Amino acid sequence: LAGLGTVGGGVAELLEENRDWIRRRTGRDVVIKAVADRDESKRARVEAMGAELVDDIQKLIHDPDIDVVVELIGGTGAARELIVGALEAGKHVVTANKALLAEHGSEIFPLAAAKGLHLGFEASVAGGVPLLQSVKETLAANRVHRLLGILNGTANFILSEMTDKGMPFDQALKLAQEKGFAEADPTLDIEGMDTAHKLVLLIQLAFGQYLPLSDLPVRGISGVDPTDIGYAREFGYQIKLIAEARDLGGQIEAGVFPALVSGQYLLASVRGSFNAVRLEGNAGPIMLHGHGAGDLPTASAVLGDLIAISRGAAPNNLGFVDVDLPRAVQQPPELTVSRQYLRLLVPDRPGMLRDLGAAMADNEVSLAQIIQKGEPTNDRMVHIVALTHESTAKDIQGALDQLRAEDLLGGEPIWYRIL
Amino acid sequence: LAGLGTVGGGVAELLEENRDWIRRRTGRDVVIKAVADRDESKRARVEAMGAELVDDIQKLIHDPDIDVVVELIGGTGAARELIVGALEAGKHVVTANKALLAEHGSEIFPLAAAKGLHLGFEASVAGGVPLLQSVKETLAANRVHRLLGILNGTANFILSEMTDKGMPFDQALKLAQEKGFAEADPTLDIEGMDTAHKLVLLIQLAFGQYLPLSDLPVRGISGVDPTDIGYAREFGYQIKLIAEARDLGGQIEAGVFPALVSGQYLLASVRGSFNAVRLEGNAGPIMLHGHGAGDLPTASAVLGDLIAISRGAAPNNLGFVDVDLPRAVQQPPELTVSRQYLRLLVPDRPGMLRDLGAAMADNEVSLAQIIQKGEPTNDRMVHIVALTHESTAKDIQGALDQLRAEDLLGGEPIWYRIL
Repeated sequence: LAGLGTVGGGVAELLEENRDWIRRRTGRDVVIKAVADRDESKRARVEAMGAELVDDIQKLIHDPDIDVVVELIGGTGAARELIVGALEAGKHVVTANKALLAEHGSEIFPLAAAKGLHLGFEASVAGGVPLLQSVKETLAANRVHRLLGILNGTANFILSEMTDKGMPFDQALKLAQEKGFAEADPTLDIEGMDTAHKLVLLIQLAFGQYLPLSDLPVRGISGVDPTDIGYAREFGYQIKLIAEARDLGGQIEAGVFPALVSGQYLLASVRGSFNAVRLEGNAGPIMLHGHGAGDLPTASAVLGDLIAISRGAAPNNLGFVDVDLPRAVQQPPELTVSRQYLRLLVPDRPGMLRDLGAAMADNEVSLAQIIQKGEPTNDRMVHIVALTHESTAKDIQGALDQLRAEDLLGGEPIWYRIL
Repeated sequence: LAGLGTVGGGVAELLEENRDWIRRRTGRDVVIKAVADRDESKRARVEAMGAELVDDIQKLIHDPDIDVVVELIGGTGAARELIVGALEAGKHVVTANKALLAEHGSEIFPLAAAKGLHLGFEASVAGGVPLLQSVKETLAANRVHRLLGILNGTANFILSEMTDKGMPFDQALKLAQEKGFAEADPTLDIEGMDTAHKLVLLIQLAFGQYLPLSDLPVRGISGVDPTDIGYAREFGYQIKLIAEARDLGGQIEAGVFPALVSGQYLLASVRGSFNAVRLEGNAGPIMLHGHGAGDLPTASAVLGDLIAISRGAAPNNLGFVDVDLPRAVQQPPELTVSRQYLRLLVPDRPGMLRDLGAAMADNEVSLAQIIQKGEPTNDRMVHIVALTHESTAKDIQGALDQLRAEDLLGGEPIWYRIL
C-alpha cells in the first residue's frame, strides 16, 4: 500500500473490519504486507496492522512477498514510477489515480497487458459507484451511444449550495473547503480538469476509443453566477458540471462544461457531493449514483479490485481484447448541437426583441423562449434570457457576433448548454 | 437458446447487431447454435440466424457443440429440467428465471458449483441494470446492511399512473396490459410475488444468507387506493412497491410491501416501468436505476453473462466461496420498526382525537401528525390520517385492537410503512 492518507486509511480500515467477510468472498486473506509513506508518525498505526512501514516505494516493487501494489500517492511523478516499476516487476496494480491514467494510460495499459497483469482502477472514476466493471463487463454487449456524468463531488457540492442557498461561488467554495470536500488548491476540481481525467477513461471503456485529454474542451464552474442558477431554476433546470460524450458513429463529441440539466433527468436530482453517471445504450438509459470520493467509498472500489485479483480473475483492464484502442475522431466542438441558454445585456429600447430575434434567425438560431429579466442599468441596458431550440455553438457565436457588430450587445454574453 | 419470445428475440437481435463489438470485447464469436421453441412458425427466423430450430430441449442438453444453454422458457417445470440437465451435461447456463432460482436455487446453485460451471442470472433481477455483478464483485468488500428496491416495472408503472393521473387501480392495470407492461394474468407482478423472487436472490448475494421464499412477508398493490396516493403526496411521499431487507446483525428483516417513500430518496423519483435498487453499505448509499424488463435490457444482461463465459472468467455464481449459504434467522415481521401511515374511519364527535391519541399512547405508538380528511359519512364517521413516529407493527396492531374494542374504529384500517 503506497500512501496512507484518507483513502489508504480507508482501505486498511475496511480490510480489517470486513476481514472475515472478504474471506467468505475469496477464500483468501488479503493482507497488507508493507505501507510506503514518508510520514514516520504513522509507524505505530502501520505496525498495529501487522505491516511494515517503508519510506521508499522501491521496497514495495522489489519485495517478493508482495503480489499487488495499491498506489494511493496520487499525482503523476512518483506514482507513475511506482506503477510502471511494479508492473515491470510482475506485480498487479490497483490505483485510484485518474490523472495518471488519463495522461499516461497509453504507456501503462499496454505494459499491464504485455505482462498479463491486473491494472485495477475502479476507484479512479465515481469512487464507490460500481461503474467501470459494469461498463466493461455486465454492460459489455451494449454499444453506449451517450454518457453523461456528474463526476466531481466538490463541484457538485458547490453548485448545490449555490442553488439551495443562493450563495455566491466564493462562499460555497469556502464552505466546501471547511467541510473537507475541497482541497486547499481546488483548481483541478472547480476548473473541470478532474472531471476531464475521468471522462478520458470512460470514453475508452464505453466507446473503445482513445481521445487525448488535450483534445477535450473543458470549462469549469468558477464563473457560474447565482443569478443564472436562479433563472435556470425558474425554467425547471439545475446547473450541474457535466461530462458528456456521444458516439456519433464515426465521430466522438465530448466535453466537460456546466450545463442546465432538465428536472426530467435524475441527474438533476444529484445533491451535494454525490456522483452519478447516465449511460445510454442498447439496454436503455441506466443511472448509477453514489459517493464519488471519501475514505470508505473509494476504499470499497480499491478492495473490489483486490478481491477480483485474489479470486484469480483474468485481467480485463480496458474491457477489450486489443488494448491499443483506435484514436477517436473528434467532432469539432463548435458543431455540437444543443439547446442553449443565453443571458445577454442589451439596450433597453423598443424593437430590441425584434432585432435580437432577427440576428438569431439570420444565423439559423431558433428561439424557444425570450424573457427580459431585472431592471435596466443606469446606462439603459437590460438583461435578456433566451432559450434556444437545438443550435450549433457556431451558429450561436455567429448570432452574438452579429449583435455585437450591430451595437446590440453589452458585456460578455453568458452561455450554457441545456441538457 | 431455449425460448425465442421477447427476451430470446432480443438476445438474437443484440448478438447480431453488436457482433463485431462483442468480438472486440471477448476475442470470440458468440454463436447461437440451436433454438428450442415449439413454435414451428419461427423456423425461417431461426434458420436466418444460422441456427437450427429444435422442438425438444433435450437436444440442447445433448448437443456436444453447445457450450452454454440460455434458458428463457420461464416457469419452474421444463426450465428446471433444462437447467439441471444442462449442468449435469457439463454446460454453462444463463437464465433470467427468478422464480426458478428463488424456489429451487438450493438444488441448482450447488449443482453448478459441484460441476465448476457458470450459472449466470444477471437478467433475473432488475433486467438491464448492472446489479448482481456489482453486488458480487465490485461491491464485494461491502457489508450491505440494508437494501431497498423497486424491482417490478409493471407494479411501478401502475402506481405511477395512479399517482400522476389519479387513476384507480383497475384502470391503471388495464392500461399497463394495453401497453404490454403487464401480462394477461398479472398476479405475480401486482401481488408482489415476482418482487419476492428477486428479493430472495438479492438477500443471498448481498447478505450471504438464505431466506426461503415461504418465510418472506409479501403484500402487493391491488388494494392500493388512489385516495392514499393523494394523501401521501400531500405529505411529500410516493407510494411504491418496495422490496426491503436489513441485516440487523444476527437477524434479517425482509419483506415486500407498498410503502410511502420520502421524496428525499431518489427511489421516490423512479417513474413508469423503471427499476431501481438502493444499497446501503460501507461505501454509503448507492443507487442503480434502469429498465428492469423488456427485450433489449434483459438481453443486455443475458449477453453480459455470455461475454463473461466466453472471456473464460471463473464462475462466481453466488459471490461466495461456499455456496451452502447459512439459513437466515428472520426477525418476526411484527417487530419491524418503522414510521407508519394510518387511515382510519372513526366517529365524528368531540374528543375523538384525544381518545385516538390515548389508544396510541397506551400502546407506545407516538403520533407525528394527525389530520381529519374529507367529510363525515352518513353514519357520522370520518377519515383520520395519522403518521406515526417509529413504531413496531405489533404496537400499531395493539392500538388498532384497542380502538376497535372501544368502538372507535369503523371499517378496515389502511396502513402503510413510511420509508
